[in-house]
Amino acid sequence: MATNTELERSPERRLLAAARRLFYRHGIGVTGVAELCAAAGVSKRTLYELYGSKDGLVAAYLAELAERPTPLEEPLDRDDLTPRQRLLALFDRPTRPGLRGCPFHNAGVELPAADHPARATIRAHKEAFRADLARTARAAGAADPDGLAGQLLVLFEGANALLATLGAAAAFDPAHAAADVLLAAAIR
Amino acid sequence: MATNTELERSPERRLLAAARRLFYRHGIGVTGVAELCAAAGVSKRTLYELYGSKDGLVAAYLAELAERPTPLEEPLDRDDLTPRQRLLALFDRPTRPGLRGCPFHNAGVELPAADHPARATIRAHKEAFRADLARTARAAGAADPDGLAGQLLVLFEGANALLATLGAAAAFDPAHAAADVLLAAAIR
Repeated sequence: MATNTELERSPERRLLAAARRLFYRHGIGVTGVAELCAAAGVSKRTLYELYGSKDGLVAAYLAELAERPTPLEEPLDRDDLTPRQRLLALFDRPTRPGLRGCPFHNAGVELPAADHPARATIRAHKEAFRADLARTARAAGAADPDGLAGQLLVLFEGANALLATLGAAAAFDPAHAAADVLLAAAIR
Repeated sequence: MATNTELERSPERRLLAAARRLFYRHGIGVTGVAELCAAAGVSKRTLYELYGSKDGLVAAYLAELAERPTPLEEPLDRDDLTPRQRLLALFDRPTRPGLRGCPFHNAGVELPAADHPARATIRAHKEAFRADLARTARAAGAADPDGLAGQLLVLFEGANALLATLGAAAAFDPAHAAADVLLAAAIR
């Protein structure tokens, strides 16, 4: 139907949209090429022509995700908050349904092979987020911004990881309390 | 060869040993039934007779793992340390090669379906570890043992998660520094 926005987009856009939805929600391993193609409304031949392989689509999916913050990283960009408040807001309990932690970390768990084309993207994303944390920690007046950034990255990664196992409250409430203690110790 | 210990064990033991090695190292999704059977030296028919399906073997793999601490959890049981030292030792940089975080968390990332037989085991393991942390925090004299346990669980989960992406030093050194701050704030 020509009026359907989803169908009007290019096969690339439709495949990436299907990848974002299915890889994040169900996992990369369990999502087959047939399911991706059916969700995107393209043929398998089109997928292979565009991305070479499922691994190629996985790499493109992560490269596109790397262009903007993940939903759980968004509080770090809030301009209605002070730098210190932004660092703490990362640990507010998320309310958006269907969150299952960090898509980069999740992909890393499923794709441990050192030569997978997605691994450099995963590592670069974590390093870039750590640099954002350090910039914000510096703006917040931390005595050792890199040290505080490293601590908050571990805490953020842990809350993301536990979100899928224990739910948002059990993962983010203790992380928020810990972030409060770490910020108080690092910013005089 | 009858002298090979691996081959002398029962098909169940050999399949579980292959699952421990391959699921943890390479991931659950990418490890196929054929690869598991080849590594264990059993037929596919034997696998299906014993476990019903690959999902059944995954559930048995996690149930067996749940019988003892994971390598990264072991410091919590060290009887040469005080309770407070045990809590901090969880964040010593691990030296064992091939570690790729928590096998329960990793399985949870790959198996998000709420009705997968492994999910209850994953959740129960995290809750049991949190209870161990709270017991140790109480023995260490924490004013709010459950609160401290929740904070340390997030931090531990984060170090486990980052281990695979950034390596042991980048994951555990900042986690150790953060644990030190959290312990000092929680134990007067």
